[in-house]
Amino acid sequence: MQVFPYEALKAFTTSVFLAMNCSEADARKGADVLLAADLRGIDSHGVARLSSYVRLWDNGRINTQPKIRVVHETPSTAVIDGDSGLGLVVAPVAMACAIKKAEQVGTGWVAVKNSNHYGIAGYHAMQALDHDMIGMSMTNASPLVAPTFSRERMLGTNPIAVAFPAGEEPPFVADFATTTAAYGKLEILQRQEADVPPGWVQDPEGNPSTDCHAVTKGGGLLPLGSDREHGSHKGYCLGAMVDIFSAVLSGANYGPWVPPYVAFLEKKQDLVGAGIGHFFGALRVDAFRPADEFKSHMDAWIRRFREAEPVAADNKVLVPGDPERECERIRLTEGIPLLDPVVKDLSLLAEKFTLSF
Amino acid sequence: MQVFPYEALKAFTTSVFLAMNCSEADARKGADVLLAADLRGIDSHGVARLSSYVRLWDNGRINTQPKIRVVHETPSTAVIDGDSGLGLVVAPVAMACAIKKAEQVGTGWVAVKNSNHYGIAGYHAMQALDHDMIGMSMTNASPLVAPTFSRERMLGTNPIAVAFPAGEEPPFVADFATTTAAYGKLEILQRQEADVPPGWVQDPEGNPSTDCHAVTKGGGLLPLGSDREHGSHKGYCLGAMVDIFSAVLSGANYGPWVPPYVAFLEKKQDLVGAGIGHFFGALRVDAFRPADEFKSHMDAWIRRFREAEPVAADNKVLVPGDPERECERIRLTEGIPLLDPVVKDLSLLAEKFTLSF
Repeated sequence: MQVFPYEALKAFTTSVFLAMNCSEADARKGADVLLAADLRGIDSHGVARLSSYVRLWDNGRINTQPKIRVVHETPSTAVIDGDSGLGLVVAPVAMACAIKKAEQVGTGWVAVKNSNHYGIAGYHAMQALDHDMIGMSMTNASPLVAPTFSRERMLGTNPIAVAFPAGEEPPFVADFATTTAAYGKLEILQRQEADVPPGWVQDPEGNPSTDCHAVTKGGGLLPLGSDREHGSHKGYCLGAMVDIFSAVLSGANYGPWVPPYVAFLEKKQDLVGAGIGHFFGALRVDAFRPADEFKSHMDAWIRRFREAEPVAADNKVLVPGDPERECERIRLTEGIPLLDPVVKDLSLLAEKFTLSF
Repeated sequence: MQVFPYEALKAFTTSVFLAMNCSEADARKGADVLLAADLRGIDSHGVARLSSYVRLWDNGRINTQPKIRVVHETPSTAVIDGDSGLGLVVAPVAMACAIKKAEQVGTGWVAVKNSNHYGIAGYHAMQALDHDMIGMSMTNASPLVAPTFSRERMLGTNPIAVAFPAGEEPPFVADFATTTAAYGKLEILQRQEADVPPGWVQDPEGNPSTDCHAVTKGGGLLPLGSDREHGSHKGYCLGAMVDIFSAVLSGANYGPWVPPYVAFLEKKQDLVGAGIGHFFGALRVDAFRPADEFKSHMDAWIRRFREAEPVAADNKVLVPGDPERECERIRLTEGIPLLDPVVKDLSLLAEKFTLSF
């Protein structure tokens, strides 16, 4: 494990994107989105993934000079074609479009096709906050999740993020995979060769498993709820909703056809759409009630939940966004710790592109 | 257990609402919404609850002659004041408003305050389907759910429903509480004095429990995910999102202040808003892509998921809405089975209002 200053990692990431022929603006934006994951402690979605973006670019699946364009719109909606661009770059354009529409008619909803992995869902939802808007963001992803009763993997970890602005309190920011555990959590246990808790994965035959390699062997991640008795059909519903909003509505690939991001899966040949899909929403708070009124009630909501009587006195009830914000505060000053395999990955990228790291 | 024809129960329910001084139109609409639960097999939300609506009306908490009105709006949004009306009657007005806005600007989003229990969430979302729109519906509810790490009950079972139209296939309709199990499931086990599965409830001290009476004794339902290791913080996020969209955005009561529907909870004195809150959305499919195109891809989605390789050959993968639709088909012809305590409840209502049952 080594610790790196935030700015140094961001500069390096920018230089990698520049070496991939991104424009200056896109390289900076992509690095900002990617590093937001490292800052917020979602290590699986940060620079640890940089080499995967490069791999997809090497394979011709990422266009670093995309013409991102609106292909359909109404006053409150749009569909954007990402032109195979980095999702890290396509998503901010789409979220900005949603925000602009919300300014005009109260809310804005943008579905995106022909995109790639977009980093952490929460980053995009949070763009709404400074505008006194509620932000939403979701995306489909590599088919690694087995719906309830399914042996086959049909959905991605399909995250949902929602950000609500508050007044004196920090904002409420929820950002979570619709599976029991995100794939990144599994990768952490793989590095330690540790068992995974029951209820996270199933083996290739669909039996419960605690093998941290179950998914790479053909098994599936389980929807939030783990099994039918504990509501896995609800997690399946959530993942399916994200898939349909992101891809059936936009014209991207859905379900098992989503072009995989992980190296151990092959891309399907009989695609049903273009690239992967995202869905974004922005709701102007004052399209419902005066923003100050809403924000002071959000403060009351947040304070009441923080003060909820805890089961254990030393383990207080959290408000969504608390752990990530605390991590960001620490890592901005103390730096970002990277595991040795990640450091090695970045060194190889430096070598490949003749950059200093 | 006795079985009753759908039309007979609907006529009786209508007559009860008329006896409560509802208008003819409201009584019919309320009965239609309530009976939709019985038809679709969500027995806890149908006529089994009729006596609770009467109890709330007796206590002066339901206004059966409400002036339901829009108190704030933009082209794509509105806030509606339900004037303490039956949620069964207020919600359809709000959903119709969302649909009208979607016709005009692509999407419509309506937050509702000062309402009461609105029946099954799915009924309202499904109103969008005939308009080639996607429908969404959510509501907050009696505080019976303990967030992750909380001993205290802070949220309701806060359901989410989403309905997507398809072409030749029936629509995709998800409708689920954001807890591991809905409260109605617990009531079924209470009647049998049976243990509940681990992961559904906690006792008043916040310890895991299998006592079917844990919640009436002061314990809490658990968010979807059951415990931290299995993602209960995600279920808590979902329930919180529903609470904020439904109530902080509309001006209703939120969190522990939600006026309880269940008889064993007292209403709080220091209310933070008006009644309970709902949130509705309608998205015109052709605000994103031609409706026929979307619907044929929905057909492909639905067929592919039905054909997913199952774990057990005799237990196929379902599409959300399948079990409810099958139940509706059967009950429309074979009648609706009611448990003896429910039949007794309805007989008492017949006596109270001098109606025949």
